[in-house]
Amino acid sequence: MVELKTLENLFLDTLKDVYFAEQKIVATLPEMEDAATNNQLKDAFAKHLAETKVHVQRLEQVFAIIGTEPEAKTCDAILGITDEGAEIMEEYEGSPALDAGLLAAAQAVEHYEMSRYGTLRTWALELGYNDAAGLLQTTLDEEQATDLALTSIATSVVNQKAEA
Amino acid sequence: MVELKTLENLFLDTLKDVYFAEQKIVATLPEMEDAATNNQLKDAFAKHLAETKVHVQRLEQVFAIIGTEPEAKTCDAILGITDEGAEIMEEYEGSPALDAGLLAAAQAVEHYEMSRYGTLRTWALELGYNDAAGLLQTTLDEEQATDLALTSIATSVVNQKAEA
Repeated sequence: MVELKTLENLFLDTLKDVYFAEQKIVATLPEMEDAATNNQLKDAFAKHLAETKVHVQRLEQVFAIIGTEPEAKTCDAILGITDEGAEIMEEYEGSPALDAGLLAAAQAVEHYEMSRYGTLRTWALELGYNDAAGLLQTTLDEEQATDLALTSIATSVVNQKAEA
Repeated sequence: MVELKTLENLFLDTLKDVYFAEQKIVATLPEMEDAATNNQLKDAFAKHLAETKVHVQRLEQVFAIIGTEPEAKTCDAILGITDEGAEIMEEYEGSPALDAGLLAAAQAVEHYEMSRYGTLRTWALELGYNDAAGLLQTTLDEEQATDLALTSIATSVVNQKAEA
């Protein structure tokens, strides 16, 4: 007999997916920081790496709240998104458009995370995990702030250079 | 000698990526509509399919504006995101949480698109393709509206059922 899966299962599956994604991002951001030529962009990647390490810890707190051990589940979406970023780093190496491409790749990552954290936050509230919802909302706020910061760098600095 | 790539190249590469993604979404939405059990959600997927077909045509107009033939380039990100959606359809078939999972998958798709269209719109303006920027902004507005509509369905209907 197949067990009927519930929102609780879906919440846990998605938590494992994002736990995998955040660890992948921790591994990828230093490569993006190295590749970037613009100093504002390098700083933004370094700052976001520090934040992302905290996001991993917050997810571990959420696992604790729901009474399970942290576990990562392969997230095909983040692998696809970061593969595209790796392709940009390779194809645009030495190009004036490299930073613009890195910014776009990073914003695709941010948007994926915003979508996942928004979903997880809503489900946590639905399931009565109010403390978990608060932690997820804090990370969501930081992802949104990072996305806005990247937009600001993109429009003010990098695109002009890419055109040169 | 390696040709130095510019923002123009990056714009075209990303346009091809999104052209691939939109076609993948046109192929996937009918499966999601079939799988959904909630009628509001089925309707939302049907409406978004009609819109997405127009998004494909708008991208073809953008290719025309920049003087090239429409061409799709494999987009690993959308393949990863839709693979996750397919996994949900399989693993949550017959489950009360299926619709919540479909909604989350669809919102991940919307967020990817919002990121790409935001980027393309900014680059189009930077490159002086003002008409293309207008078309890309129109699609971006529709993706954002779809995301909000899905959030509204998620919080009002589907999650309650998934908990039952």
